[in-house]
Amino acid sequence: MPPDIQTTLKSPRTKLKRYAKRGHHDFDTVAAILDEGLYCHVGFVVDGQPYVIPTAYGREDRTVYIHGAAASRMLNTVATGIPVCITVTLLDGLVLARSGFNSSINYRSVVILGKAVPVEAHNKVHALTLISEHLLPGRWDEIRAPTRKELNATTVLAVAINEASAKIRNGPPHDNEADYALPCWAGVVPIKLSKATPVPDPRLAAKTPLPSYVRNYRLDASRSAKPARK
Amino acid sequence: MPPDIQTTLKSPRTKLKRYAKRGHHDFDTVAAILDEGLYCHVGFVVDGQPYVIPTAYGREDRTVYIHGAAASRMLNTVATGIPVCITVTLLDGLVLARSGFNSSINYRSVVILGKAVPVEAHNKVHALTLISEHLLPGRWDEIRAPTRKELNATTVLAVAINEASAKIRNGPPHDNEADYALPCWAGVVPIKLSKATPVPDPRLAAKTPLPSYVRNYRLDASRSAKPARK
Repeated sequence: MPPDIQTTLKSPRTKLKRYAKRGHHDFDTVAAILDEGLYCHVGFVVDGQPYVIPTAYGREDRTVYIHGAAASRMLNTVATGIPVCITVTLLDGLVLARSGFNSSINYRSVVILGKAVPVEAHNKVHALTLISEHLLPGRWDEIRAPTRKELNATTVLAVAINEASAKIRNGPPHDNEADYALPCWAGVVPIKLSKATPVPDPRLAAKTPLPSYVRNYRLDASRSAKPARK
Repeated sequence: MPPDIQTTLKSPRTKLKRYAKRGHHDFDTVAAILDEGLYCHVGFVVDGQPYVIPTAYGREDRTVYIHGAAASRMLNTVATGIPVCITVTLLDGLVLARSGFNSSINYRSVVILGKAVPVEAHNKVHALTLISEHLLPGRWDEIRAPTRKELNATTVLAVAINEASAKIRNGPPHDNEADYALPCWAGVVPIKLSKATPVPDPRLAAKTPLPSYVRNYRLDASRSAKPARK
């Protein structure tokens, strides 16, 4: 890894051209957004056509992991080493300015450019643990471990976080000076993900207690405190 | 438009290979997901590298509109007519099965493959109205109309919905029969977007009332009832 990439994730391809002041290229900012997001969108190219597919992911250090059926088009395509883009977007609110031109959305997003590399068999369980714990910390220890057959049917891919950018827009609208005199309401409508009451599986045995990691599940940044590596 | 495309959005490229039973290619299913989503992810290719960028959008009939600064890399790239992918994903919940292999996510997503075409100047305001009303119905009438300068600085692109797929996963986990005897909790943790109390702009004039379309704003499918075209 060249020395400059150790301190910044910026490249000519991830340097922001629009609203550069909203851009960040330090690893901690990128990692915090990745850890709060629940799913990503993976972009890849087949015969010149881009495809963008939502999928779960996990992160450890400077690597993002995605997974899926070994038979899936997406995973077999990216596993050959073609370039991918992994984007995570957190919606934070609608920004109601006094004109459409200045109206906006508060959000935090990360764009990672890289190549997807298959995770070798002996590391698959660890990577799958990371993906599971990323979505719902505490779950992995309670469920049945993967079988050999299941692992063989699962492709896991790793993408290094070497070339990336974060983009953040927050705060109130920024209107043209003359527009502040307009009578319409202006401000921000905050938006966030929220959970509702868990719905037990119809086949769940009576009196099976709801685990504390589900009852106390949080979708905000507090979810991302990493469990101890096992 | 060939006759078969009028009845289905399926093509060899949008036919689902994994979990085909979750797939839908009828326009109404695709349109309902598009109308409920708030933002999309646009995929495009530059020098063989895919980029995936979040952005707002609107829909009218069989066309999706996106917009942005005329100077933006994304919009100038796609405006040349290169292939794009527009993906909208609605997260509905975590599916907690008794194994990692059967654990899943409940979601609704749409993938549109197409080419982006610049919207001509005389249709820009209409397309921008659609994008604004898609995010927050009722807002457009209250804000200042776009100036000629603002319209010139804004690129609007149209993507026809001719080749698309929807994918929907819902309901409880589907475990291996033997796993139903395991003692762990199983079921679904529903997740949805929710709004919080609107935050007035610090420069908002005192006693400016919160409009009813903000107070009653809903993020679910009920938001998508289209306003009358002006």
